[in-house]
Amino acid sequence: MANDQDASPGRGGLSRRRLLLGGAVAGVGAVTAIAADLALRPPAPSASGGVATEPAAESAAATSDSGSAASESLHGGNTVPFYGRHQAGIATEPQAHVTYVSLTLLDHVDRAALTRLMRLLTDDAARLTQGRPALADSEPELGTAPARLTVTFGFGPGFIARAGGVAPDWLGPLPPFGIDRLDPAWAEGDLLIQVASDDALTRAHAIRMLLKDTRTFASVGWTQAGFRRARGTEQSGTTMRNLFGQVDGTVNLTPGTDDFDELVWCPDGWLAGGTSLVLRRIQMNLDTWDRLDRGGREQSVGRFLSNGAPLTGSGEHDEPDFTATTPIGFPVIPEFSHLARARSENAKERIFRRGYNYDETPLGGSVSNSGLLFASFQADVTAQFVPIQRRLDELDLLNEWTTPIGSSVFAVPPGCAEGGFVGETLLG
Amino acid sequence: MANDQDASPGRGGLSRRRLLLGGAVAGVGAVTAIAADLALRPPAPSASGGVATEPAAESAAATSDSGSAASESLHGGNTVPFYGRHQAGIATEPQAHVTYVSLTLLDHVDRAALTRLMRLLTDDAARLTQGRPALADSEPELGTAPARLTVTFGFGPGFIARAGGVAPDWLGPLPPFGIDRLDPAWAEGDLLIQVASDDALTRAHAIRMLLKDTRTFASVGWTQAGFRRARGTEQSGTTMRNLFGQVDGTVNLTPGTDDFDELVWCPDGWLAGGTSLVLRRIQMNLDTWDRLDRGGREQSVGRFLSNGAPLTGSGEHDEPDFTATTPIGFPVIPEFSHLARARSENAKERIFRRGYNYDETPLGGSVSNSGLLFASFQADVTAQFVPIQRRLDELDLLNEWTTPIGSSVFAVPPGCAEGGFVGETLLG
Repeated sequence: MANDQDASPGRGGLSRRRLLLGGAVAGVGAVTAIAADLALRPPAPSASGGVATEPAAESAAATSDSGSAASESLHGGNTVPFYGRHQAGIATEPQAHVTYVSLTLLDHVDRAALTRLMRLLTDDAARLTQGRPALADSEPELGTAPARLTVTFGFGPGFIARAGGVAPDWLGPLPPFGIDRLDPAWAEGDLLIQVASDDALTRAHAIRMLLKDTRTFASVGWTQAGFRRARGTEQSGTTMRNLFGQVDGTVNLTPGTDDFDELVWCPDGWLAGGTSLVLRRIQMNLDTWDRLDRGGREQSVGRFLSNGAPLTGSGEHDEPDFTATTPIGFPVIPEFSHLARARSENAKERIFRRGYNYDETPLGGSVSNSGLLFASFQADVTAQFVPIQRRLDELDLLNEWTTPIGSSVFAVPPGCAEGGFVGETLLG
Repeated sequence: MANDQDASPGRGGLSRRRLLLGGAVAGVGAVTAIAADLALRPPAPSASGGVATEPAAESAAATSDSGSAASESLHGGNTVPFYGRHQAGIATEPQAHVTYVSLTLLDHVDRAALTRLMRLLTDDAARLTQGRPALADSEPELGTAPARLTVTFGFGPGFIARAGGVAPDWLGPLPPFGIDRLDPAWAEGDLLIQVASDDALTRAHAIRMLLKDTRTFASVGWTQAGFRRARGTEQSGTTMRNLFGQVDGTVNLTPGTDDFDELVWCPDGWLAGGTSLVLRRIQMNLDTWDRLDRGGREQSVGRFLSNGAPLTGSGEHDEPDFTATTPIGFPVIPEFSHLARARSENAKERIFRRGYNYDETPLGGSVSNSGLLFASFQADVTAQFVPIQRRLDELDLLNEWTTPIGSSVFAVPPGCAEGGFVGETLLG
């Protein structure tokens, strides 16, 4: 499964682009030494057009490799394979920046038009993610540094209906939760495009190229932009912190394991090899969170703020001990903590989280307008996501300081091979 | 002048934080080898509180140094000195992310309150930029990776009036330009805070901590967020490209040169060692720009899109030849091109540009809502910025596709020494 890992073997050859933009050459000592030497020269102008693909070495091993010196510190040339059984941007180690774009199909768009649209989008996504200009790229120079750009497509019920396909049972608005205060501004859409890259300029250019493709087919419903730590701020693989300061996402499925494949990828039908995306915009009330002391914050989550360890452990990934009690008999990890409530006894009720922080202009005298773009991928929303969310809705101390204000679900089709297009299992 | 460069000498000593977050150790081979070795181990939790400052090596030489291997590829621990004759964030090589926050002072705020406010802000800015938590930091773990965080303060006329000071003649709205379509949403403010970092999470945390300091003194007027290439996408020192795909900012003053000091820093009064900031929000109409072919785009700018070279040259920094003509007698660099119009015969009419791209949700059926946060620093707005802008206003082919929609000017006070505060020359 080509997209399960961000790594692909080096293709050898030293292009100027690799020297300028990186693209780690792990283990190729001689080449690296030359690259390091040349990297000391002043930057030359980048070539326009005719840019060769630069395979990236993005696995954890390559990232912590100590042998590749200066060429490794530039990552603009790093790419994630586009073609494969699954779409990229799901099992891909999260990039620093993401934008989710929701599109509403125009009235005239029928099944044939959807096919044209998805062929166009697939073609340009394949080009852009490999550092090549889009087919009608008006600013080709902006496309030469993919920085692990991925483009991932998801379909809403409207898209599938016009395609004449059968929507999975779980597609559509989630059941209402008591904590929800949903704003229609973030409602469901027909077509979702997730664009993620370690570089914000690359993201902006890719979005623009893709939206130009959609212009005669759809209008923009909303965009939601999020961020994590920049590439290189901290070690690759470090669990994200959210804007509450919490280590967020410790319990998660691991790409490349059997569990992951079974719980994330749909098994059959046109969605075989695809998945579902639940995207929830969760406002975090930092102003009231401020009134809570450190102990209170740790109790509400069930984890230490310093390193994310459960309150019964010392390391982030230590197994929590829900039977441990304080000297006066209370559970060390409160039953109403987020950690306790999110956990299920049923091993099937697990999801793959790939969330981002958001931070917008404060409104109305507040000092923050921040939160989490909660994003999870799972084979079956009803069987996996909903039970977890229901437990959290019933009781989760964190609910005091968080409010879901947006919610949408998309069916994420499988990937495609070169020559094919994303959505071909539905439209082909 | 401590802030003229981002470099400070290494202080030796190997902390866990340096291993996790970087902080280049240029030239220290043995230490680097150990760091590279340890970097292969799984990440350990970061300590909270009591974090030591990690000096950064941010000069061009250090960035292209080939000897420091894995530890150099992490840059979260890199810092820019806060204290100095000039505020940081001006001569500092631009970070990947910036947010400009404009604040409106509340009615009750008098001179004494302004002093309290600037002492608070200075203290927290000094802490945060060095990777230490703010004084009352509610999420100290978010502050440990400064990634070259800088915080820069600017004063509007309202601030100076309440301080009982004398505003420089050039402070206030710019003269009206014919091309302006200014939206009051981006109008002048009383206090500007520029927060810049290579890491978006660090930026978000710093803004929040600083706005908590201002909460009882001011309200947020606007925020404007911008981006450049991520750190490590391309070689350090590469001139930015804007969203038109143009190399933007080739002709610029160079920090550390005599020209720079004379043209950027104010010579006397409470602003001695300070400067001015002109911030203009320039909407770029990418949709109509699309209709222009490559030749037309290059003519409008006077430079090649491929590498930013003037149309009479081959390298970005080649001197343009305005006398060169085409076979049929037209100037090779059109007289109405941006390059020709922006240039002055008067060597004093130069400014230091430090702009960023912006890209927001498209509105009203458009596929982009993008532009440039034009930011320039100069000793005298009237003598340096206005003549350039007037020439561009009269005639500049680029005006066809760009519209200034926001404009503000701030007096940027000098830096301060440890124990002092930014603004002390006005308030002290």
